[in-house]
Amino acid sequence: MFKKILIANRGEIALRVIRTCREMGIKTVAVYSTADAESLHVKFADEAVCIGPAPSSESYLKMSNIIAAAEITNADAIHPGYGFLSENAKFSKLCEEHEIKFIGATAEMIDKMGDKASAKATMIAAGVPCIPGSDGILDTYEETEKLAKEMGFPVMLKATAGGGGKGMRAVWKVEDLRDAWDSARMEAKAAFGNDGMYMEKLIEEPRHIEIQIVGDSFGKACHLSERDCSVQRRHQKLTEETPSPFMTDELRDAMGIAAVKAAEYIKYEGAGTVEFLVDKHRNFYFMEMNTRIQVEHPITEEVINYDLIREQILVAAGVPISGKNYTPNLHSIECRINAEDPHNGFRPSPGKITTFHAPGGHGIRLDTHVYSGYMIPPNYDSMIAKLIVTAQTREEAINKMRRALDEFVIEGVKTTIPFHRQLMDHPDYVAGNYTTKFMEDFEMEA
Amino acid sequence: MFKKILIANRGEIALRVIRTCREMGIKTVAVYSTADAESLHVKFADEAVCIGPAPSSESYLKMSNIIAAAEITNADAIHPGYGFLSENAKFSKLCEEHEIKFIGATAEMIDKMGDKASAKATMIAAGVPCIPGSDGILDTYEETEKLAKEMGFPVMLKATAGGGGKGMRAVWKVEDLRDAWDSARMEAKAAFGNDGMYMEKLIEEPRHIEIQIVGDSFGKACHLSERDCSVQRRHQKLTEETPSPFMTDELRDAMGIAAVKAAEYIKYEGAGTVEFLVDKHRNFYFMEMNTRIQVEHPITEEVINYDLIREQILVAAGVPISGKNYTPNLHSIECRINAEDPHNGFRPSPGKITTFHAPGGHGIRLDTHVYSGYMIPPNYDSMIAKLIVTAQTREEAINKMRRALDEFVIEGVKTTIPFHRQLMDHPDYVAGNYTTKFMEDFEMEA
Repeated sequence: MFKKILIANRGEIALRVIRTCREMGIKTVAVYSTADAESLHVKFADEAVCIGPAPSSESYLKMSNIIAAAEITNADAIHPGYGFLSENAKFSKLCEEHEIKFIGATAEMIDKMGDKASAKATMIAAGVPCIPGSDGILDTYEETEKLAKEMGFPVMLKATAGGGGKGMRAVWKVEDLRDAWDSARMEAKAAFGNDGMYMEKLIEEPRHIEIQIVGDSFGKACHLSERDCSVQRRHQKLTEETPSPFMTDELRDAMGIAAVKAAEYIKYEGAGTVEFLVDKHRNFYFMEMNTRIQVEHPITEEVINYDLIREQILVAAGVPISGKNYTPNLHSIECRINAEDPHNGFRPSPGKITTFHAPGGHGIRLDTHVYSGYMIPPNYDSMIAKLIVTAQTREEAINKMRRALDEFVIEGVKTTIPFHRQLMDHPDYVAGNYTTKFMEDFEMEA
Repeated sequence: MFKKILIANRGEIALRVIRTCREMGIKTVAVYSTADAESLHVKFADEAVCIGPAPSSESYLKMSNIIAAAEITNADAIHPGYGFLSENAKFSKLCEEHEIKFIGATAEMIDKMGDKASAKATMIAAGVPCIPGSDGILDTYEETEKLAKEMGFPVMLKATAGGGGKGMRAVWKVEDLRDAWDSARMEAKAAFGNDGMYMEKLIEEPRHIEIQIVGDSFGKACHLSERDCSVQRRHQKLTEETPSPFMTDELRDAMGIAAVKAAEYIKYEGAGTVEFLVDKHRNFYFMEMNTRIQVEHPITEEVINYDLIREQILVAAGVPISGKNYTPNLHSIECRINAEDPHNGFRPSPGKITTFHAPGGHGIRLDTHVYSGYMIPPNYDSMIAKLIVTAQTREEAINKMRRALDEFVIEGVKTTIPFHRQLMDHPDYVAGNYTTKFMEDFEMEA
């Protein structure tokens, strides 16, 4: 087992990793920028090394400084958290070259799954369903009609040079395809001087549902069920839950099998997530694979009482996984508490936290690096806490989240607590009736 | 279902009850003494009524004021928490007379189980094993020897007028009984002027292990496994865990059956605890029954994901229980954090909390009514927080408790955090090898 792990990250995830290391008896090294000297991850690590000034490019992304910190402190492994260098093939390779174990994917896996096109090709080879579409630019209308009939309607025509909805047409039946093709090409030509078109299957009422997987160095993988992350604003997840209110046992089995197939095909080691889009007919399509721990991992941990960071460390140390797939029998919801003003377009609100009082009691988990008196630096992601509640049913979990949000006091900065509190009362959320489009129509009440 | 519940208590348990009421959509009324105006239970309740000055006899024990507060606010039920009026038959009856549902035992049940002698008689009638002993004063040596042989050695001779160990003799074999009898009587005569003796079976290496039970108004009861509360100082529990490291499946079954038998015999309604002494041979003996929620209830909640306060409320409202007995497949430990100085004989340390920073993350639960800036009044129990950790194994739970205690910052007053931290490293605690005598030999390190 590793003797000392350096955590190449900041904030709550750095603290999260430190906590598990402590519980496993592994020493920890924090790294920090000058802006983060007062963060809890620095206080709670056994050692801490300043790696540069606030801009990430000069500290948390500065590979040479991080490798140097690991060598100075004799760390035998590096945990990258999420973001920053967690899916950087070059960094993974650099660790390997310095004989420091990178607790994450190998450079090869990251390369395979990091690029959209190669990820899709790999998944098709593995037999995982991907969003059907044309293989590059469509040359003729006849070819387009033939393909559309094969894929089945609805389809989406897209200009290869497109953007802002220009040159895009959703088509629901074959009779409308010719007109759409002609007008989209004209529009694209006018807008971009390029009428090249491609086509994809249109995903109706899409939900973002991802499967947590764990693979080991013996080629074995298992899945830990799903997380529904459909409530997103500009592709940023705001809240997640497990199980998905849209899930059925059959769909979970099918998605779980596909995710394990994906992981085993690329001999994936460690914790990873296979993200899918699921349409209203419960067809699911591979979107991308995240070769790292994710922000929303705690809801999975809570419903199956499983420490995912511990599992990452064990797998990295060569311990085989049990191989058992898990199905939750509890319900867990996470709200990301950001220092943003939900009444003002979610504008970031850095500054000093004057009062911080956390909710507590049965079924409440809080992951945070902040405290009363903490100064939120303007340089980083605005997430300051993750509030996770767990209960026997979805209804109870929503009730618990409401009361936990009511108890949560953060003063000095604006936060997204009021947003989450309104979300928990939104009839569509309460009904479990939401898609990735949900936030487009959401409006904050005063 | 109840519309509004008055909580006739203070501190963390009042807040605990309020939290569940909120989650169930039930309005709450807090009552408070003038010393508790700043407590969180007052802030988080829907309404709050001041019921008198700091001494409990003039507020939290003042039945007329509490009933009046319930009537003024139209509360249809009263939750008494633990301590104070929770096992007061007169108060239970008074609630009944005022047509306010008392969320606890009836006056009859409290009377039956509140008095040691009648509780023992009831349990013997129910077929629950009690500590064998003489039926009052022993008249002759011959009678004593006969009884000792029947009960089996070791036995404990005790002076009826005894105290401070005077006139007490532990006897391990029949050959020593005569001498012990003579010398104990002489000693008692000299010390108290009364040589009356009685005898009980001596419980070797006793552990305090209790079984959580729930009964409903249909006469059905079930058990939710055990809690080991052997780590006590002057009969005050300091830390509890479930499962007991001393437990076997056979013993749990036998104790569970006995506890359910006890509950069903008296037609017990609500949450209750049957406390047993368990000797080193795993014989168990009824000690007493607590007809209320207990301080240490959260560890049971955590290992089986079950809200005991919710269950109390449901049962009081006439909902039947599922009747399923639960066996934990996780391990949970609670440390009671008291404002006491463990380096100074656990002397109370009331005063202002200048800094309060709670531990967080996976498997951590905190139940507390205090916060940064809170003034601990000198009038009440010194417990200010309950830290509960839950993990897959006992070893992991101890590791988690260590790191949680390390993270826990309370400044301004002395607390028992350092005691618990040392306890978690004590070889006998770590080995699960402790009895109710454990604290007699425990010494704090500097």
